Amino acid sequence: MTQRVEIVRKILDANERIAAANRALLDENKVFGVNMMSAPGAGKTSVIMETLRRLPHGVRAGVIEGDTAPVTIDADKISALGTPAVQINTSGSCHLDAVMVELGLQKLDLKLLNLAVIENVGNLICPASFDLGTHANIVIASIPEGDDKPYKYPNIYRGLDVLIINKIDLLPYIDFRMDYFTRGIQILNPDIKIFTVSCKSGEGFEGWMSWLMSKIPAKDQLKDL
Amino acid sequence: MTQRVEIVRKILDANERIAAANRALLDENKVFGVNMMSAPGAGKTSVIMETLRRLPHGVRAGVIEGDTAPVTIDADKISALGTPAVQINTSGSCHLDAVMVELGLQKLDLKLLNLAVIENVGNLICPASFDLGTHANIVIASIPEGDDKPYKYPNIYRGLDVLIINKIDLLPYIDFRMDYFTRGIQILNPDIKIFTVSCKSGEGFEGWMSWLMSKIPAKDQLKDL
Repeated sequence: MTQRVEIVRKILDANERIAAANRALLDENKVFGVNMMSAPGAGKTSVIMETLRRLPHGVRAGVIEGDTAPVTIDADKISALGTPAVQINTSGSCHLDAVMVELGLQKLDLKLLNLAVIENVGNLICPASFDLGTHANIVIASIPEGDDKPYKYPNIYRGLDVLIINKIDLLPYIDFRMDYFTRGIQILNPDIKIFTVSCKSGEGFEGWMSWLMSKIPAKDQLKDL
Repeated sequence: MTQRVEIVRKILDANERIAAANRALLDENKVFGVNMMSAPGAGKTSVIMETLRRLPHGVRAGVIEGDTAPVTIDADKISALGTPAVQINTSGSCHLDAVMVELGLQKLDLKLLNLAVIENVGNLICPASFDLGTHANIVIASIPEGDDKPYKYPNIYRGLDVLIINKIDLLPYIDFRMDYFTRGIQILNPDIKIFTVSCKSGEGFEGWMSWLMSKIPAKDQLKDL
């Protein structure tokens, strides 16, 4: 299987180069980029929508939506909030890569933006291997997924900057040991920032928004937009 | 990218051949094999455990547990019920394939079994491409994942025999349109069997157990086990 290993290495090397170019492009435009990953149904789109609603006046975001199928369910929700959204259909592939994000960034007017949010395909395994060229890797976990996930899917948590634990409104109805879950995360990644939130009640969003705003670079705002 | 496409095709062809051999081995031993797939945290292990508890006296099961990490959390739960369990660590890979299942089946004493349950890695995308050599492909969906999943992850639902919708006890707390969800499934797969269950209350398990028992082939039971 040497040949296959060699090809996989070349693909990952090429991905790294394009990711670095994506990051340089974002930096040049003073745009902070985030890669939002999660299992299917953990609430990526809901967290992104609540985040967009809470952005202070004058902070402009664009969103790249990764989907395995040609459906625009999530992109339509984002557009309905007045935020530019680009949909990328991976044609069945299980993750976004830096080339797909490069194409997506070309469709956003980065000069006008402060924040680029990339919603990855719902998958706790494959996206972990592909740097997209963002500034922060973020996973959204959710209470119904169960408290054993850091132990069973460790790779995705290792390279993270932020973990958002969503659906805490369901804690009364589900057996979920928060200390067991967060201990598993901190063993893998002692420096990670953890925020617990509910998109239903809005609880916990202040901490996450305050972290996010602290990362967005200063930028002369264009007038007359 | 012709070279990569060619290699992927060869891998899938080889997988098909080994899957066919796995199915022949199960048939020869009169063992019914099921491939249980789902997103992370939908409740594969819980549904399997409840199924094992409800098997009639004299029906013997063995379980193959696929995990991306070298943890035996799920295999230990199955063993604690007195059911033989084999753990397969995919070393970070995102799905089981027929070779891994071949190795797992070698560790089960098929002469003594009526049912082989294979718990795939938690992933709604990649496992859809790999026939394992079982007789039925089954997905476990769950209410908290949301009702748009058939539209966003269509491939996994297309080749299914059975869909088990789990965690219906959470319906009062979550916006989930059951008719929208099942319509999405039936467009993709009109002949699918759908069962709605709760592992917490046990609701709905009769229908699933009755389907499963109707598939298990008659076999002379060995005495003195």
